[in-house]
Amino acid sequence: MRDYLSDPAEIYRRSFATIRAEADLSGFAVAARPIAERVIHACGMTDIVGDLRISGDLPGAIAGALKAGKPIFTDSEMVRQGIIARSLPAGVEIICTLNDPKARELGLGRQITRSAAAVSLWLPRLKGAVAVIGNAPTALFALLEALDAGADKPAAIVGMPVGFIGAQESKDELAENPRGVPFATLLGRRGGSAMASSVVNAVATELSP
Amino acid sequence: MRDYLSDPAEIYRRSFATIRAEADLSGFAVAARPIAERVIHACGMTDIVGDLRISGDLPGAIAGALKAGKPIFTDSEMVRQGIIARSLPAGVEIICTLNDPKARELGLGRQITRSAAAVSLWLPRLKGAVAVIGNAPTALFALLEALDAGADKPAAIVGMPVGFIGAQESKDELAENPRGVPFATLLGRRGGSAMASSVVNAVATELSP
Repeated sequence: MRDYLSDPAEIYRRSFATIRAEADLSGFAVAARPIAERVIHACGMTDIVGDLRISGDLPGAIAGALKAGKPIFTDSEMVRQGIIARSLPAGVEIICTLNDPKARELGLGRQITRSAAAVSLWLPRLKGAVAVIGNAPTALFALLEALDAGADKPAAIVGMPVGFIGAQESKDELAENPRGVPFATLLGRRGGSAMASSVVNAVATELSP
Repeated sequence: MRDYLSDPAEIYRRSFATIRAEADLSGFAVAARPIAERVIHACGMTDIVGDLRISGDLPGAIAGALKAGKPIFTDSEMVRQGIIARSLPAGVEIICTLNDPKARELGLGRQITRSAAAVSLWLPRLKGAVAVIGNAPTALFALLEALDAGADKPAAIVGMPVGFIGAQESKDELAENPRGVPFATLLGRRGGSAMASSVVNAVATELSP
């Protein structure tokens, strides 16, 4: 068996030191760099920098929503689990509506994905909330459609669905027209729950005492 | 708003058709190809093929363990959520010990990660089980160390931790010396909960009627 580093604090320190040494984050606003580092940490890939888009107002928008006790909506249970609950201000809820029986019904009735149907259940509390999508392109499309139809705006959208059909297109749509909402996205096919939740974790970690 | 595909069955079909068209899976045993496709589907990257290692006996080993009702141990709640519970044979438990208070105590006491400590709680039921690691390199190292120390062998190890410190090394250790256990891994820094859980999902989907 080879030797390895087992001390958690030292693993954490060296991980971020490696990222800072290897990744060129000069293209990001200073306030956005901890987010970029955390997304890289979540995926093990420094070459996502070129595809990562973080609007300048995103860090403050997420911080403000969390401090105001607004909920975080997620498109999957994996994203919900990826958000470090203990780092959030007291009272902030993390809500995933994917397994709500209403999402299933709505999806079957309208022949849309359960992920897209689940987004419609966010709308009553979407105003000023944080929307985090790390799995389903159709959830991101559904959120943008809801905004076009007049839904209340969230404080921020983290849109990082992954995959081969619709992922790239949904993220291009967000980046090209974020509907006035601060956002983060990763262009292309790459993405996922770990990366999406890491954006919230980066902001929450900076906030927590 | 651009047009997009919203029908879930068609999204699924076209996703896998795209993967089959783009990825060269000829290096994998026929029984391992559905696993490779599913891992690619989970991450959106066809270029992982060169780093993906699936031992020839892995698909049968996982299938056998699931059919025998053995538990699945996961190193994180994200992996647990990533495994599609409804596709598993009735009675198969998915167990994550990371948030067991004993894991925290053990970790603090021995100055090791909570992830590594959590693996020690798998040992009483590890024999013939499926071990799925998608987050922490130290969990994979701890599992291999336990085997070297005489722990009962699991039926299979899916070892796909992600990151900058220890991930690559722990997966090299698994691939170079799997201790006689069927395994899947993704060499290098890439990996994660979605990819790790997708290996189980691929086998379970083939099993389910």
